[in-house]
Amino acid sequence: MLQAAMQIPPETFLIDRAVAQPLQLQLRRQIVLAVHEGRLRPGERMPSSRALAAHLGVGRITVTQAYGDLVATDYLIARGRSGYFISDRIEDLGPGPATLQEAPRFDWSSRLDGRNLAARRKDRPTDWRNYPYRFLYGQTDDRLIDHAAWRECAVRALGRRDLGALSDDQYDGDDPELVDFIIRHLLPRRGIKARAQEILLTLGAQNALWLISEILLDRGAACAIEEPGYPGLHEILTTLRANVVPVALDSDGLPPASIPDDISVVFTSPSHQCPTNRTMPRERREDLLRLAAEREIVIVEDDYEFEISFAGSTSPALKAMDRSGAVIHIGSFSKSVFPGLRLGYIVADPTFIAEARARRGMMLRHPPGHVQRTMAYFLSLGHYDRQLKRMREAFAERHKVTSLALMRHDMNRGATGKAGGSSFWLATPHGVDSDLLARELRPQGVLIEPGRPFFRAPEAGSGFFRLAYSSIAASDIDEGVRRIAELGRMLAGRD
Amino acid sequence: MLQAAMQIPPETFLIDRAVAQPLQLQLRRQIVLAVHEGRLRPGERMPSSRALAAHLGVGRITVTQAYGDLVATDYLIARGRSGYFISDRIEDLGPGPATLQEAPRFDWSSRLDGRNLAARRKDRPTDWRNYPYRFLYGQTDDRLIDHAAWRECAVRALGRRDLGALSDDQYDGDDPELVDFIIRHLLPRRGIKARAQEILLTLGAQNALWLISEILLDRGAACAIEEPGYPGLHEILTTLRANVVPVALDSDGLPPASIPDDISVVFTSPSHQCPTNRTMPRERREDLLRLAAEREIVIVEDDYEFEISFAGSTSPALKAMDRSGAVIHIGSFSKSVFPGLRLGYIVADPTFIAEARARRGMMLRHPPGHVQRTMAYFLSLGHYDRQLKRMREAFAERHKVTSLALMRHDMNRGATGKAGGSSFWLATPHGVDSDLLARELRPQGVLIEPGRPFFRAPEAGSGFFRLAYSSIAASDIDEGVRRIAELGRMLAGRD
Repeated sequence: MLQAAMQIPPETFLIDRAVAQPLQLQLRRQIVLAVHEGRLRPGERMPSSRALAAHLGVGRITVTQAYGDLVATDYLIARGRSGYFISDRIEDLGPGPATLQEAPRFDWSSRLDGRNLAARRKDRPTDWRNYPYRFLYGQTDDRLIDHAAWRECAVRALGRRDLGALSDDQYDGDDPELVDFIIRHLLPRRGIKARAQEILLTLGAQNALWLISEILLDRGAACAIEEPGYPGLHEILTTLRANVVPVALDSDGLPPASIPDDISVVFTSPSHQCPTNRTMPRERREDLLRLAAEREIVIVEDDYEFEISFAGSTSPALKAMDRSGAVIHIGSFSKSVFPGLRLGYIVADPTFIAEARARRGMMLRHPPGHVQRTMAYFLSLGHYDRQLKRMREAFAERHKVTSLALMRHDMNRGATGKAGGSSFWLATPHGVDSDLLARELRPQGVLIEPGRPFFRAPEAGSGFFRLAYSSIAASDIDEGVRRIAELGRMLAGRD
Repeated sequence: MLQAAMQIPPETFLIDRAVAQPLQLQLRRQIVLAVHEGRLRPGERMPSSRALAAHLGVGRITVTQAYGDLVATDYLIARGRSGYFISDRIEDLGPGPATLQEAPRFDWSSRLDGRNLAARRKDRPTDWRNYPYRFLYGQTDDRLIDHAAWRECAVRALGRRDLGALSDDQYDGDDPELVDFIIRHLLPRRGIKARAQEILLTLGAQNALWLISEILLDRGAACAIEEPGYPGLHEILTTLRANVVPVALDSDGLPPASIPDDISVVFTSPSHQCPTNRTMPRERREDLLRLAAEREIVIVEDDYEFEISFAGSTSPALKAMDRSGAVIHIGSFSKSVFPGLRLGYIVADPTFIAEARARRGMMLRHPPGHVQRTMAYFLSLGHYDRQLKRMREAFAERHKVTSLALMRHDMNRGATGKAGGSSFWLATPHGVDSDLLARELRPQGVLIEPGRPFFRAPEAGSGFFRLAYSSIAASDIDEGVRRIAELGRMLAGRD
């Protein structure tokens, strides 16, 4: 649709004078090949012979001859004054010209160890929107996004006054207006007091975790992670070949006592643990900070989903209690605005931020200026708070509906998710394998997230799955849960 | 200005029930501290006592008492029905309350080796726009950007139909419409035929170089780079502690014969070398590809600035001649649209692209959906070509004006830059040190880029500098060059 009645620009064509082949022939071959390979499509209009000749620096006659030939061979259609168009009868043209003999291919396998591919999750179909019962985490629910407001902010951020912010290469700088709002309006909600030199914007929480891991685990330092924990972090640590010690959670989250010595970095999501949604009690946070101080451990706090907690008032972030500067705090707008936004931030000691800023500068310079400025408006005009309110209300309702459905269909054993958020962490019905369950549910239009990717020792996840309600309508939840329960019974019976 | 008559949202405040301190006192202290630290600013309006009480889950009386107290102590002003506002007489309040005793700071220096900071360039002031004679490379010239067109495309990309592209987390996917345009309309200009599985979008060329370097140099592989070459690449290779062999250029660019054995990756910018603007002749490209085939070398082609070459028709990219798949091609929209856009792409063998895509997914997921879709419109509606035309014309003129100025002021010795682009690479007048020259020029409102960052062996750059005209008006060029020449004479005389 983007390409309706496409006018092909002259720049699309290139002739190479170094090639010993008549220019007219070169041009003709180029067009024929492009048509067969679908790079030029039926109905598209060719440049005028004058324009193309000028661009290629050839006589106009060269182009008109080539065009004439292509009309004769049915590749082009001449429409009098309106010019030449790609034929819509390509299929009648038979097979394309044999392309050049392929040279021996370069042996890439010897250069790539597949490590990146190996770390990758493949846990959801790209057409997930077509599944009626999509218990998928972290995707968008169009019904909850204030699209008009975002649009208004984006347009405003395109105004003259913001042109610099939009178009300049900021090197390693961030949008001061966005940083200011994070400091003044977001961090206080988490009890965090920070100055500009303690903030770095990132392309979402994933990018923040990557930056932090690369910097801190660079020299083989050992890190502890929560088991189960965030799969995106597993991916990163696997790829970086990090020395990882998984620490099993108890009902209060990560137990500091179980953190072995010689650990130099601890990754945790205390406010709202991923995937169990547990909240770490204050006493334990204090123990964790004390331990960090004693052993000089860096604590990376993924302040996951705090914004959409709806179960009572939120507790302050771990970073709010950190007086030594050992805590690196990660926040994100991806969940609370929308994931495609790719915008998050790190709050940490200025020394670390300076290092991370320099590295981000080499890695990607900075998040696109327009996205930063648009977010600044979205915050400053109050849209962010209104959207959060809407999300909290919707998620609170879905949480209630899901709890009821889980009870009704006898699936609530070991359910955790009371702290709000947008998902439940569940034991599979009758302990059936979660991969099997997920696979067999797809044909029934149900998507769930099997437990293995959440565990460093995957088998430990075979009896669990995540049931998220961030992108499913409340009205579809009960039927979805019923199908899960029923298939669970069925599969259990099978054994 | 964003914050005119700011209404402070209730969510800005957080009280901690675990702290043994009356809620009313906690709230009051929080406001006082925020005022002194500038997080709450004069004239801003406090939440209504009802809204704040509801948010904090405290009695309304608690809030009204706190507000009353703060009015009495001049932190707040009551304006009858319109509510409570932050006092505009903060300075009269005297010093803020002594903040808590700081805990011993965490020792970050022991964790960070400063490597990232070390690699960083500090070669331009952030207020570069205020310098009348800014011979700076790669910044935006607002006069050349079709801002209205970009705005139109961005608005269109915010339309209902594009909501998914805008808001979804695409995991490791790219915008199919943008990829389609790159394949059909950009790559053919470079003589490159590619399929979707051979394309990966990145956050600009810098991000592409980072991704490629991390993947290919991961296991200590040695790489060859052009000397002089692109400073951004130096930064990356230094940070990654890569094994780097600089290869001195001759008048035709990188001489394949000088590439030592045991090199597994060669970085080059054949179409338009950075910083010398030289173009590698076809014969040499063939030699380079032959060498790559023999020794199984990966060639990374930075197809730098081809779009804005105005000196005759462009020669095809090295990738266009690559039949074995050993060439990784990097393109960018940052120079041709604007740098703040942060959008570029890699064209390479599907095996490599799959690996790079997985890694990009872990590093940052994907470039923001809205930016991708906006670019797709900018291309498909022909704005891109119109903007390039405008840029080429402007740069051609500035190039002419600069050449004349260089001759007039006797500064054209060893000047290279005939292939177009947006800069000249020059020997400093009378061989004065380029760092000294650049430093002393700043007070005169002139910005140039000294040569050292372009060399792996920095001292080799002391006699060179880059004179870019991408962000300076033609009318300012002669006077700028005159000042450089004059200061050069002056400094030379000094010795």
